[in-house]
Amino acid sequence: MRAIKVIEPFKVEICEVEKPKIENQDEVIIKITSGGICGSDIGIYNGTNSLATYPRIIGHEFGGIVKEIGSNVTELKIGDKVAIDPVVSCGECYACRTGRHNVCSTLEVMGVHRDGGFKEFIKVHKNNVHKFAKDFDDSLLGLVEPYTIGMQINARGEISKGDKVLIMGCGPIGLCTLQVAKKSGAEVMITDIVAERLEIAKKMGADKTILVSKEDLEGAVNGFTNNEGMPVIVDTVCSASTFEKAVKLASPAGRIVVIGLTNAPSQIAQVDITKKELTIVGSRLNCNKFDEVISGFESGELSPEILKTHSFHFTKIQDALQLIKDEPEKVIKVVLNFN
Amino acid sequence: MRAIKVIEPFKVEICEVEKPKIENQDEVIIKITSGGICGSDIGIYNGTNSLATYPRIIGHEFGGIVKEIGSNVTELKIGDKVAIDPVVSCGECYACRTGRHNVCSTLEVMGVHRDGGFKEFIKVHKNNVHKFAKDFDDSLLGLVEPYTIGMQINARGEISKGDKVLIMGCGPIGLCTLQVAKKSGAEVMITDIVAERLEIAKKMGADKTILVSKEDLEGAVNGFTNNEGMPVIVDTVCSASTFEKAVKLASPAGRIVVIGLTNAPSQIAQVDITKKELTIVGSRLNCNKFDEVISGFESGELSPEILKTHSFHFTKIQDALQLIKDEPEKVIKVVLNFN
Repeated sequence: MRAIKVIEPFKVEICEVEKPKIENQDEVIIKITSGGICGSDIGIYNGTNSLATYPRIIGHEFGGIVKEIGSNVTELKIGDKVAIDPVVSCGECYACRTGRHNVCSTLEVMGVHRDGGFKEFIKVHKNNVHKFAKDFDDSLLGLVEPYTIGMQINARGEISKGDKVLIMGCGPIGLCTLQVAKKSGAEVMITDIVAERLEIAKKMGADKTILVSKEDLEGAVNGFTNNEGMPVIVDTVCSASTFEKAVKLASPAGRIVVIGLTNAPSQIAQVDITKKELTIVGSRLNCNKFDEVISGFESGELSPEILKTHSFHFTKIQDALQLIKDEPEKVIKVVLNFN
Repeated sequence: MRAIKVIEPFKVEICEVEKPKIENQDEVIIKITSGGICGSDIGIYNGTNSLATYPRIIGHEFGGIVKEIGSNVTELKIGDKVAIDPVVSCGECYACRTGRHNVCSTLEVMGVHRDGGFKEFIKVHKNNVHKFAKDFDDSLLGLVEPYTIGMQINARGEISKGDKVLIMGCGPIGLCTLQVAKKSGAEVMITDIVAERLEIAKKMGADKTILVSKEDLEGAVNGFTNNEGMPVIVDTVCSASTFEKAVKLASPAGRIVVIGLTNAPSQIAQVDITKKELTIVGSRLNCNKFDEVISGFESGELSPEILKTHSFHFTKIQDALQLIKDEPEKVIKVVLNFN
């Protein structure tokens, strides 16, 4: 079978690899139908993802159809449409013991620390497989994972009905976060430097959009909150300065969610945290969010079809990467088709 | 009646001021019996507390005996022993609406933003008065407030049974935090640069003490946590570098509580927050913690008598301030006696 392998930075190939076989009876083999290309896949391709080693079969956003199951697998049957949680944890460390396996001390993510899902078939443990209740568009099965990131961000920020939320940045994570927040009944303001992206945010339910290259963010926050400051801020831009700005814009008793993996330090004074008694939380990957996202796909409250702006056959990975490089302002999510 | 007034930085006097009278029927007049001197009182005296204006009757840690009540006051009677919550809030801003009145946008603290409790009698709203169920040592009534700070820190850090906790710094706040954490069943390591303070921490139940001037903190954390990192860290030292150190020492899924009011920025990289999915929270003053602390005093689980290392008649405020200046390593809490 064929797989997308990054041999070394800037060298990606369609390789022939061995088709998996059930060895352990808790295992499931899935025929991949679709995968989403994430910024961290690009980072592996560009050599800027410090967590990855090479060669690597990339892909952590993927889904498909169950083709074979071990004898211990009772929750799934052949033909089920599924999405796969790429997080693999130990079950024993402090984080795992306290129900936070997404920050397991020996965490491995498929497609990053170990081979991933951009191939025709994959074998995974049954616990990583989450099924749709009914038939669903094959090309969207790979988009559950990015929505779980947004769901995790919402959970970490405790975003709920009536909350006023600022999302900085309108990339796929910002948009998924937006839509989950809207599903919860929050009132959301979202920013970007690209007007086209803000149009997509409006389609996804944004209450207010701010083109930060032209509009004054602080003034907009004041207007949106009656000068109370912003109760919840999600920084998906992840620069040193956006984190600093979030701390300044947050209201007393506000919450800030950061997801950046940058080593560049932000200048954060304790007085700003203490005086407003802020809650600043990191959000990483997802912790048991697949089933809730799948429900949102099935109910129509989440719109992966809007997120998917482009589509390529997986053998055209070079073309997909070129598009993302050449026209980043036009691309939200490129979906690879494995059928 | 007499009051302790800071006229301007470095000038404190015992002044004659008018004795309060009930004007609104929700008011209570209290004969003060004891007050605790806090670092922020020293800051007002030294001119380093940016929140205070002058002249100011200081004192936000105080308690006493109910002397007079308005006709709407049914919860209290003359002779009740009480402690007074110095936090005054608006009830209308975002923080107040969400139950976080301690960070009210127009917050006032008695003894800081408005006149405080270092005087013979004070008049306050009934909602700020919290009574003891039975008789209690007059000289300790003023020490409820510092324990509410420790109680708030524990609440913000969600410290509970079985948690491993590092408290940086063994001043009054560190010690109050320690004792509340022990009351909850946590396992606590505490640090200081003064050996005598660590001895007091041991009396208050510390499981492990670290003299950071001589012992290696990181090694001690590794030993205390089986190399898992520290699940909860409370920084009561509040320097730019201790906050940075807390971020490094925290375990995956760890919580950090900061209480500093310093403007000096710490260098905080997002990767450290995201990768471990940390929760960093500020803790300020207290939010409805008086009754719980009073219960702890009455049950004997909290030991204000250990906290109180020195005692002066309030008219000897100059001597008290001199002692704190001259022998800071010997002083935990100076109590002023108003009887």
